[in-house]
Amino acid sequence: MKQQQFTGRIGILGAGALGGYYGGRLAQAGNDVHFLLRSDFDAVNRGGLQVFSINGDFHVKPPVYRSAADLGECDLLLIGMKMTQNAALPELLGATVGSDSVILTLQNGLGSEEIIAGVLGQIGLSDPLDRIIGGTAFLCSHRSEPGFIHHTDHGHINIAEAGGPPRDRTHAIAALFEAAGVPCYVHDDLKRVRWEKLLWNIPFNGLGVAGQGADSQVVLDDPDLQSAARGLMEEIAAAACADGVDIGADKIEFNIEATRSMGHYRSSMLLDYQEGKSMEVEAILGEPLRRAREAGIEVPRLAQLYAIVKRLDLMNEAGGMHAGQ
Amino acid sequence: MKQQQFTGRIGILGAGALGGYYGGRLAQAGNDVHFLLRSDFDAVNRGGLQVFSINGDFHVKPPVYRSAADLGECDLLLIGMKMTQNAALPELLGATVGSDSVILTLQNGLGSEEIIAGVLGQIGLSDPLDRIIGGTAFLCSHRSEPGFIHHTDHGHINIAEAGGPPRDRTHAIAALFEAAGVPCYVHDDLKRVRWEKLLWNIPFNGLGVAGQGADSQVVLDDPDLQSAARGLMEEIAAAACADGVDIGADKIEFNIEATRSMGHYRSSMLLDYQEGKSMEVEAILGEPLRRAREAGIEVPRLAQLYAIVKRLDLMNEAGGMHAGQ
Repeated sequence: MKQQQFTGRIGILGAGALGGYYGGRLAQAGNDVHFLLRSDFDAVNRGGLQVFSINGDFHVKPPVYRSAADLGECDLLLIGMKMTQNAALPELLGATVGSDSVILTLQNGLGSEEIIAGVLGQIGLSDPLDRIIGGTAFLCSHRSEPGFIHHTDHGHINIAEAGGPPRDRTHAIAALFEAAGVPCYVHDDLKRVRWEKLLWNIPFNGLGVAGQGADSQVVLDDPDLQSAARGLMEEIAAAACADGVDIGADKIEFNIEATRSMGHYRSSMLLDYQEGKSMEVEAILGEPLRRAREAGIEVPRLAQLYAIVKRLDLMNEAGGMHAGQ
Repeated sequence: MKQQQFTGRIGILGAGALGGYYGGRLAQAGNDVHFLLRSDFDAVNRGGLQVFSINGDFHVKPPVYRSAADLGECDLLLIGMKMTQNAALPELLGATVGSDSVILTLQNGLGSEEIIAGVLGQIGLSDPLDRIIGGTAFLCSHRSEPGFIHHTDHGHINIAEAGGPPRDRTHAIAALFEAAGVPCYVHDDLKRVRWEKLLWNIPFNGLGVAGQGADSQVVLDDPDLQSAARGLMEEIAAAACADGVDIGADKIEFNIEATRSMGHYRSSMLLDYQEGKSMEVEAILGEPLRRAREAGIEVPRLAQLYAIVKRLDLMNEAGGMHAGQ
């Protein structure tokens, strides 16, 4: 039986390396995709979106908007902005979410669904968690300049309902992505989806920044950094277990192996750091640390790494210099 | 009974912030002190050594030498150079150590006595460990420019024989320092002296560098960095315990409190990092880590910090930039 595919008006909030890539794929496949853009508006409005992808380059020229009010109500909203930009959510969602809208958040770390649900509650929607699908993107991509996205490895998405088990709409959205050339897997348990992603995100984002530009290859090639990464993964697996998610030991090895193919990959947090932007410290390191502590799990490496990276983020905000390369 | 004070020809090897301060004190007290200098030779030869000290400023103009051969044999050699400069030891000690010379090493971390003993053995001296006194300096000082030393806090020395219990000479050397205004305490167990110093050195040097200029005040003022420092201290206490040194829990609190008076103090490793010099990564972090591992002690924070700082040291050597201040 072929899965029913989602149809409707799709709004992309946060069209950087992630939203730009997935939104671009959906647009290329002929869907009704609309982009809310800030700094990239002029470039994309003029020249469209150019994606250089390991799966084939493509160009699209979707409708773009400068404000959420201009964009208006959408049936599906893809949240691709950074967790550090969530202060804008009330304005963005207030103007774009209708009574039947579904929100798909691919934000990093922990806490995105809860934050979005809080915003939906504030704007008067009932059962806010039921309106949200959470997911994680396994995507190596970066934005070289406004309107230019480079997709260099991987690309699949794992999604799950925030408020319960998968529904027809969950599968319909997965089918939407699949039809656009994006492998998309539906999972039963969003907590598992998020913790399994953190297994990679915490060590490679955190050590990459603390190591002042230690890309994935640098971490893997140095026995001590790789051992630190594995140690962090063990702590995360223990914290996940206390949160009801049993991550098998083989997942650690799988993550190490999957990282080898990435080459000298710089994580999103490392790119943010080197570009002098705010880092997703709380979503990727702070919130998992707090949940581990609440569950009484010892996570000494994570606690130390959080302290270091939080300090580097503060220095970045203060305009401190750091190793750029 | 007044302790007999050491008399004889004293050679200072490594006249930076540490050797310059203690050598200067000994010279000021009228001892026969001789400095081996490299980059600072011209300045000190011309203008002497100016010490700005919380205990009173002073100026001395001791004899200085460009080479160990010119310096010649000394009765007491004070090793104040960095552990990273130990490749020069065979040349330096070969020309300055006689059959009755005593070597006092105030080098940081673990391994100094063993390395020096190895060099003494190579140059044909028997019972090399018996010729060595080890010690740790609790000194806040820095060299602003050649010939100018700033002593900003603390200043006492703990010493112990490398080869056995204290002897008359140990007390005579302590009396030498005391008479020069430097509190110097004789201890029974050099291992204890070294591990107790590491209790401070590992967290404040390591986190300071990983935190890109996180001075002692920054570490104390941030609850997460202070917690990381305390966690490291607990690991070090456990590793010391496995090495036969029982460090009481009160020592951790004592170290935190003693650090408060230092203000915005930048550790020696942090200064080296910010000046683009090699850091004493192996002496301060690597060797303690290896000894903990050999003893089967879990030191996850230390292992992770070592991995990060070693990476930063490699980048420094490669000429990488970093936050300077």
